[in-house]
Amino acid sequence: MREVFVGVDLGGTNIKLGCFDGELNLISKTSIPSRVELGPVSIIERTGQNIEKMLSESGLSIKDICAFGIGSPGVMDIEAGVVIAAGNMQFENVALRQMLSDYLGKPGVLENDANVTCWGEHVLGAGKGVDEMILITLGTGIGGGIIKNGKLMHGSSNNDVEVGHIIIYPDGRMCNCGQRGCVEAYASANATASRAKEAVKSGAISSLKKVFEKTGDITCKDVYNHVAKGDNLAKEISEGTAKALALLCINLLHVVGPKRIVFYGGMNKAGPLLLDPVKKFFNEHIWRLKKEEVELCFATLGDDAGIIGTAALAIQALKNGKIKA
Amino acid sequence: MREVFVGVDLGGTNIKLGCFDGELNLISKTSIPSRVELGPVSIIERTGQNIEKMLSESGLSIKDICAFGIGSPGVMDIEAGVVIAAGNMQFENVALRQMLSDYLGKPGVLENDANVTCWGEHVLGAGKGVDEMILITLGTGIGGGIIKNGKLMHGSSNNDVEVGHIIIYPDGRMCNCGQRGCVEAYASANATASRAKEAVKSGAISSLKKVFEKTGDITCKDVYNHVAKGDNLAKEISEGTAKALALLCINLLHVVGPKRIVFYGGMNKAGPLLLDPVKKFFNEHIWRLKKEEVELCFATLGDDAGIIGTAALAIQALKNGKIKA
Repeated sequence: MREVFVGVDLGGTNIKLGCFDGELNLISKTSIPSRVELGPVSIIERTGQNIEKMLSESGLSIKDICAFGIGSPGVMDIEAGVVIAAGNMQFENVALRQMLSDYLGKPGVLENDANVTCWGEHVLGAGKGVDEMILITLGTGIGGGIIKNGKLMHGSSNNDVEVGHIIIYPDGRMCNCGQRGCVEAYASANATASRAKEAVKSGAISSLKKVFEKTGDITCKDVYNHVAKGDNLAKEISEGTAKALALLCINLLHVVGPKRIVFYGGMNKAGPLLLDPVKKFFNEHIWRLKKEEVELCFATLGDDAGIIGTAALAIQALKNGKIKA
Repeated sequence: MREVFVGVDLGGTNIKLGCFDGELNLISKTSIPSRVELGPVSIIERTGQNIEKMLSESGLSIKDICAFGIGSPGVMDIEAGVVIAAGNMQFENVALRQMLSDYLGKPGVLENDANVTCWGEHVLGAGKGVDEMILITLGTGIGGGIIKNGKLMHGSSNNDVEVGHIIIYPDGRMCNCGQRGCVEAYASANATASRAKEAVKSGAISSLKKVFEKTGDITCKDVYNHVAKGDNLAKEISEGTAKALALLCINLLHVVGPKRIVFYGGMNKAGPLLLDPVKKFFNEHIWRLKKEEVELCFATLGDDAGIIGTAALAIQALKNGKIKA
């Protein structure tokens, strides 16, 4: 009998599943559509069924599972294993951990999605061996996870940290959260695209104009494609993104003191066009009191970070005696 | 024989000394001039002598000391007990903990001054019983301490947190640290006074003008005195301070998730004229995603917070086995 740990990474579009041995070697992984409109009972049922299927294809069964970890978006009570609210999952007071535990007959842990990604990159990815790290997720919004002294940090209500809602431009752009000037309102993929669209609509000269006329939209990917082609507006927009991220890094540095800040998410595809100006603005805006040795870099695990992180948290919880097999 | 714990709080002007029993009851306290120009050897010698004197006046001696705690400004290696650099103390690579330990023949701990104040307020003051708290020191500059899960948080280089250098207005006012737009450059006592002076010098109509003409200066205290008298410019300046502090609180909330944020320092004398507008701006600028239950309040221990905090850290270190009697 093998010792199997299951990692579940819930998202609005897909549910990613992975099974690992006790050394975090991947045995198998898969992905299924979330279909959030079917509700949480269906989500857990299909998650359970597909864990069974994934295991059986590797000659394993539910009996081989020691523990599972499940990551979800939303505001949650981690100790209780309950997602209090997650708009994009249509969850409201869902006892996610207990529901999956009931299905599998195994113990598990619940954690915030940004934190599991952070933990995954910490145990096997760009933050390996770095006990003071921050992961910043760049997507529709901006989120993140913080590791202090080798442990995930939580807010006081057991929630994740909300680094995307650090205000960098007071009274600036309106953010979805109701604040003005959040870094998320400038530097997320959506905000980067929006700023480009607004500029083009208001008559700025740019090769992005043709994209907009053709497709009725400009994406963040378009912006970086046109930076690569030398378009000035695209460059200006991308520098706004980079400066906002650099200011975020500086502010986090003064509070948390990380040794490494890892960027995660689809925007990473922009490569040096994203990261180089962030580093440039960071160096321009950081204090002169002492030399800071924080490294800014990209995540390395891609989509697997979440399932690795959740499985690793399950292994850790079992070791620590937080859960019992 | 009583069990005595000594707390030492070094500052640029005064050295505060206190001795406590194991339950943190104050036995005696005193204060001596720092006279930093005489150098660290003299500082430690006079500290040691005055600890002896203070103890003997209570019928005690150095032999009764179990352990000491010493707080200092500056960049330091806390584990090593060494202050690497502290401009206002004229310290450079001073093994402060060992030097005092040698003098007293007793073990001790070194900690950053903002952190010992924070710890003092946590054990006996405005943060008592609150395991998730932040203390913000408002003085010449702005500093702070963060308590997560009932423990002091440190930056990655064992330094304190530098909340005064969170950038709230990018490309804004120049800060002494070399950054632009730090909260310290807007909301410290010095910055509040400077902004008032600049406005008066550039011709703003204000009752503060007479103060400036008479004394050649405007202090932070003057600003709040004239707020109380209904001066519009003073009110505007004080609101700039309050807004900056509110933005700091919001940004800290999204990273650290405190339940209480405690303001400490001479500016507290302004009372509701300081705190009420901070709360007002906080409520205006905070997100609408969920109700935040963080409390903003003043410290309660005054000048004693540092000696209480250092003595409490000494008691804790002895209990934890971090140091041995």
